[in-house]
Amino acid sequence: MMEYFQAVEQRYSHKERFLPTPVPLNHLERIAKAGLAAPTGTNSQCVRLVLLPDRESVQTLCAAAPTAGMETAPAAVALLTDSSAQQAWHNFELEDYAAAAENILLAAVALGYASVWLDSPYFDEEKQQTALTILGAPEGFTLRVVLPIGLPDGEGSRRGKIPCEERMFYRKYGVSR
Amino acid sequence: MMEYFQAVEQRYSHKERFLPTPVPLNHLERIAKAGLAAPTGTNSQCVRLVLLPDRESVQTLCAAAPTAGMETAPAAVALLTDSSAQQAWHNFELEDYAAAAENILLAAVALGYASVWLDSPYFDEEKQQTALTILGAPEGFTLRVVLPIGLPDGEGSRRGKIPCEERMFYRKYGVSR
Repeated sequence: MMEYFQAVEQRYSHKERFLPTPVPLNHLERIAKAGLAAPTGTNSQCVRLVLLPDRESVQTLCAAAPTAGMETAPAAVALLTDSSAQQAWHNFELEDYAAAAENILLAAVALGYASVWLDSPYFDEEKQQTALTILGAPEGFTLRVVLPIGLPDGEGSRRGKIPCEERMFYRKYGVSR
Repeated sequence: MMEYFQAVEQRYSHKERFLPTPVPLNHLERIAKAGLAAPTGTNSQCVRLVLLPDRESVQTLCAAAPTAGMETAPAAVALLTDSSAQQAWHNFELEDYAAAAENILLAAVALGYASVWLDSPYFDEEKQQTALTILGAPEGFTLRVVLPIGLPDGEGSRRGKIPCEERMFYRKYGVSR
């Protein structure tokens, strides 16, 4: 259990390997439920999750788009959206899935794990279709992101951030404190 | 300071009025920095924030698109994205802004405030342009969301959520635990 701002500070995109230590199912469920608690545009709740609670199920999805994370993670969450849940006047699928994914990443950190937001491997139409078939997704669903979860195998690399002072202004754009 | 899962559980979209109690600037900065700590596609860091630390600055932006929240909030964060920061092969602006917005919402809750994700008021092109002018945003920027922040004036309403069991599956879509 971790304080909110500590989780935000400790989160990073773990692009390297994971240790084989299993993630208890109650931890994975807690992480997933944090994702489902995120806000959604017009309360459409278009996000659906498939929990992959062991190496075998992670490896099965890994076949669609191998990455270092998916090849080693002891657990993962696959996040899909249901386009039919959207209101005609605006589609909030991307915002909805991103807010849910961020909650999942922070929840993983809060329970002592590392994770990473894997979306681009599934931009490729063939890999997307393969992954949807493996997951048994209904027609009209899109696999938006897969989040491998586990203990990191070594310290992961962190990319640099632009100083906050250059991205945060007061009352008007460009005005410093 | 609040534990992560508690913040997730307590967060809701506060669509009603706020109390006039000011939000100390160091709180608002802490909330904004949590937003800037969110992950971004290809590390583009396209999100920029304009802090509105008092009623006067909130009211100025409120003119572009009045809501109960903006008419009463003692502080707010305006979140813009810079399209020029995107890589040509994929645009991650929506995912990036949504992850940052979610961090901001949870940070507000962690410090005892309520907030709400106001995006649709700025979908209208005229209101968008008015708001960008008020904020002094450079060419090529989009105002994605405004997050009023303060103590809620009364208990806000919460919309119902589909039970987690209907949105969360095991190994394959549709399979319950």
